[in-house]
Amino acid sequence: MSNSDAHKDKMKALQTEQRKKTSEATDPDRGLVLIHTGNGKGKSSSAFGVIARALGWSKKVGVVQFIKGKWITGERQFFAKFEDQLHWHTMGEGFTWDTQDKERDIAAAQAAFNRAIEMMKSGDYDLVVLDEINIAMRYEYLNVEQVLEGLKSRSDKTSVILTGRDAKQELCDYADLVTEMREVKHPFQSGIKAQRGIDF
Amino acid sequence: MSNSDAHKDKMKALQTEQRKKTSEATDPDRGLVLIHTGNGKGKSSSAFGVIARALGWSKKVGVVQFIKGKWITGERQFFAKFEDQLHWHTMGEGFTWDTQDKERDIAAAQAAFNRAIEMMKSGDYDLVVLDEINIAMRYEYLNVEQVLEGLKSRSDKTSVILTGRDAKQELCDYADLVTEMREVKHPFQSGIKAQRGIDF
Repeated sequence: MSNSDAHKDKMKALQTEQRKKTSEATDPDRGLVLIHTGNGKGKSSSAFGVIARALGWSKKVGVVQFIKGKWITGERQFFAKFEDQLHWHTMGEGFTWDTQDKERDIAAAQAAFNRAIEMMKSGDYDLVVLDEINIAMRYEYLNVEQVLEGLKSRSDKTSVILTGRDAKQELCDYADLVTEMREVKHPFQSGIKAQRGIDF
Repeated sequence: MSNSDAHKDKMKALQTEQRKKTSEATDPDRGLVLIHTGNGKGKSSSAFGVIARALGWSKKVGVVQFIKGKWITGERQFFAKFEDQLHWHTMGEGFTWDTQDKERDIAAAQAAFNRAIEMMKSGDYDLVVLDEINIAMRYEYLNVEQVLEGLKSRSDKTSVILTGRDAKQELCDYADLVTEMREVKHPFQSGIKAQRGIDF
């Protein structure tokens, strides 16, 4: 048997296996809950990538940003063009070390979460992104029980992505999918300034 | 000292530390090389999120997809609207188990890489995304030496993101940043059909 025939046979077997996997997969008939956590990059940006996908399929998307403040980011400038399909709320006050006011941080997080609940319950959105909400729980601006309850009250059609490091175990238990973005150590990595168009 | 004063003091110290970190960070004055690898989700989608950021800052972006074939994805439908800023080439023939023809897969990967080299060298792009190129190396459709050489020949202004599982160690050594997207096991995770607007 020639090399290319052997390759073909191997790939045919793989194709059968893949087709079986696909045909056995079930459609959940409800929106999924996805968590992006870990100490590496890509937690928020992959949520933004999923937003691009969703918009490409004419879906409706809501975003609530829990920590990020009013500074200008590439993503916000870009996605601002799609306000009929995408509602974007940046409701954080900035980094907790800049506000220096825990009460204010808590109030901002709770207000943001109220907005998130409205969006999740409304049935108006195919996808809701709760950006950096894990940080708000880590700092105890929100508690995990209220977030879990909020997720459970979502419309069946609504998928939710929660981002931020240190995701709570109870949320991971509930989620359909958890991805950890892990920073692989690298000598050049530290000490490079955040790059416009890459990091924000 | 009250609780809120204690919080304020702690945050002030943290702010000083953060400001020091930021002021010490250097600007590389050249495009970065970033790798998204691992067995989890988010490798391509976070590259798409970075594309959104870059477009938001009026930057020019090139994309070459090495594996994905001609089927319709949300990202391609969405980003097709930005052809003056974004040049997108889907040059794969599909999954290797569907083509069943190694020679054809190799030819497609090499053609895609030639396009990638042109883009990286041209100086026309702030960001070039080489989607799934790690898979092309894993299957030996491309060799790591030629990819490394291609990266080194890039214009100083051009950042490059390489995605796909099983990134080669030599590439990770060269890259400025490597993130591993790690699938955190979960009972509901397997056996859910790929979702339009989430997974593609």
